Amino acid sequence: MPTGAHGQVPGAGALLAILRDGQARTRGELAELTGLSRSTVSQRLDGLMDHRWVVAGEGAISSGGRPATVFAFNGGARVVLSADLGATHARLAVLDLGLTVLAERAVEMPVDQGPERTLGCVVDTFHELLAATGRDPVQVCGVGVGLPGPVEHASGRPANPPIMPGWDGFAVPEWLGARLGAPVLVDNDVNIMALGEHWAARPEVDHLIFIKMGTGIGCGIITGRRLHRGAQGAAGDVGHVRVPASDAPCRCGNTGCLEAVAGGASMAAALRAAGVEARGGRDVVALMRAGDLRATRLVRQAGREVGAVMAAIVNFFNPSVIVIGGDLAEAGEQVLAGVRETIYSRSLPLATQHLSIRVSELGDRAGVIGAAVMVVEHVLSPETIDRIVTK
Amino acid sequence: MPTGAHGQVPGAGALLAILRDGQARTRGELAELTGLSRSTVSQRLDGLMDHRWVVAGEGAISSGGRPATVFAFNGGARVVLSADLGATHARLAVLDLGLTVLAERAVEMPVDQGPERTLGCVVDTFHELLAATGRDPVQVCGVGVGLPGPVEHASGRPANPPIMPGWDGFAVPEWLGARLGAPVLVDNDVNIMALGEHWAARPEVDHLIFIKMGTGIGCGIITGRRLHRGAQGAAGDVGHVRVPASDAPCRCGNTGCLEAVAGGASMAAALRAAGVEARGGRDVVALMRAGDLRATRLVRQAGREVGAVMAAIVNFFNPSVIVIGGDLAEAGEQVLAGVRETIYSRSLPLATQHLSIRVSELGDRAGVIGAAVMVVEHVLSPETIDRIVTK
Repeated sequence: MPTGAHGQVPGAGALLAILRDGQARTRGELAELTGLSRSTVSQRLDGLMDHRWVVAGEGAISSGGRPATVFAFNGGARVVLSADLGATHARLAVLDLGLTVLAERAVEMPVDQGPERTLGCVVDTFHELLAATGRDPVQVCGVGVGLPGPVEHASGRPANPPIMPGWDGFAVPEWLGARLGAPVLVDNDVNIMALGEHWAARPEVDHLIFIKMGTGIGCGIITGRRLHRGAQGAAGDVGHVRVPASDAPCRCGNTGCLEAVAGGASMAAALRAAGVEARGGRDVVALMRAGDLRATRLVRQAGREVGAVMAAIVNFFNPSVIVIGGDLAEAGEQVLAGVRETIYSRSLPLATQHLSIRVSELGDRAGVIGAAVMVVEHVLSPETIDRIVTK
Repeated sequence: MPTGAHGQVPGAGALLAILRDGQARTRGELAELTGLSRSTVSQRLDGLMDHRWVVAGEGAISSGGRPATVFAFNGGARVVLSADLGATHARLAVLDLGLTVLAERAVEMPVDQGPERTLGCVVDTFHELLAATGRDPVQVCGVGVGLPGPVEHASGRPANPPIMPGWDGFAVPEWLGARLGAPVLVDNDVNIMALGEHWAARPEVDHLIFIKMGTGIGCGIITGRRLHRGAQGAAGDVGHVRVPASDAPCRCGNTGCLEAVAGGASMAAALRAAGVEARGGRDVVALMRAGDLRATRLVRQAGREVGAVMAAIVNFFNPSVIVIGGDLAEAGEQVLAGVRETIYSRSLPLATQHLSIRVSELGDRAGVIGAAVMVVEHVLSPETIDRIVTK
């Protein structure tokens, strides 16, 4: 009998993993793919159908004249709730297990009003979105949340988030779980955006770096198709890498940080110093679009500064894709040209020959899609499925 | 029944993985640890004993008065051959499966004499070492080789190695395999040194960066306890990261590369320009030890330059350990002080609070140990064992 990755017999979760490609298959086909006997396949399919992860239907006419029963992933059986919270705005969605968005809403929701008010508003919005889709709350199998600050991975709690007063150590998963009746996964915004872009960039991207260029600058890192969080969960924090030949003061207390020369806040400050009204990165991009040359030069230069830091990281990490997201990514080709210019001139040819550098495909939906990816990968993992489907 | 990582029934490979910690166990203990029935445990142990991976012995007296049979990993049953080839010297060893060195030799072996002469010399030396240990060539279960240049991971063949004329695309695994009768794994020297140091740094280091400071400068990267090779297998190539405020010409054709200011060859050239005889990094370190202040300053400054590049990488990657190896590591505290000075001043406190920065524990044996680690992890992996032990 062929065996699984660890030389062990495939369980119900392994069957479901096969069917998640959306193709319906007969018992015989599944037996052939897994090496399991047809009776074991039947038993596992029964367990998966009891939990409505799989549905049976009529397939093509077989040679004997009778149509064979085929089994398909039931991506519509359950739903996932997903929320991407920013400093002032949030995007929430209800998705099915195939990551089709069933309902979605962008709302004003300042995160500085504290966790209970903000998350109360999240719960209310989820209920409204569920009602709009006609789904029942019992169909919710998981909740994903992205927060604009550091999150302790094991507990899902914010850890000293600079722009989230009152959130430090708040038990987000427990608070939301008690109100929504489903497991809750929490991560920081850059990590979930990386997950969303990695999902969108299918198939087969092993090593992807997502750079968020907004008020701050940070990376989400995917390697071997998983998030790389690092030893303290601090990986990706490139906003405070020292840029040569700059002594611009940074909000972190140091000088010459990447964020202090290429962050949205610093660019807006530079424009204000020149007498132009600008509050943040979005305003800088709007001015650039309106033809303001100072704003255009700033955007291009910010791309170059980010590119100079990433050039070293490309040599070190050898990614296959770099995705630029965040407010500044809205500047499109201008920012991309700056990033590409420096990476191609300073990184090794071997590391850049097949490197794709592009702006986010999902735009401001990367976070809400990525938080749902995080939940679906957890809920449908073979480990979780085997635990649930005991039959 | 408790199940394995993928929710599947543990095979013979999983039993062996448990016993590899060196502790002998009874059938009952193994049944309890795996959730397998005692009869299944017995069956798998028989298979493992047939292949001599496991031996049975007499344990402590049990409560019933009769000593229970215990089963132990038979680390001495087979041997691994390991070779770490440098530009001019090589180190070769015979090790058992517990990575105890049984015989070892450092020899002069210039790699520029071409693959057939060099590898012929490797085969001869392996046979002499085997004879010295009294082991028979049939006991060899795998061969590990480190080469001083890029190696294509899938094929184990050198890929455009700059200092290895005649080796490009040479089928090293097939050539050696035909003469040594065992599977051959090949990787570049920095990757195998990282594997060796990771093994020595047990237990529980997830994210380790090994920096080789020699004639050239490069990294081996371990994340999630595996080598990170990147999209083109080019990961870790930090020697050509641009250093600010330098226009020193580099052998790669660019200027201002890290290697051009902190590599052993460039340091020796700087000393020669000042009228001091020095051929490479080893000479620089020897001069430093003899009290030459110019050499001492160069070593310290090389540490700072490497530290400045690594500071950005620490923010990006958040490793728990950085190990410095290669000829320059012989300078010990002088080079370490330079590296630490810049990393601690420029990286984020969260990323450095538990970061250990140290010189190689294994010294010039890191490569030969690491190549053996690569082989043992392959030969004893549950997948390989399950494939062999069919009983």
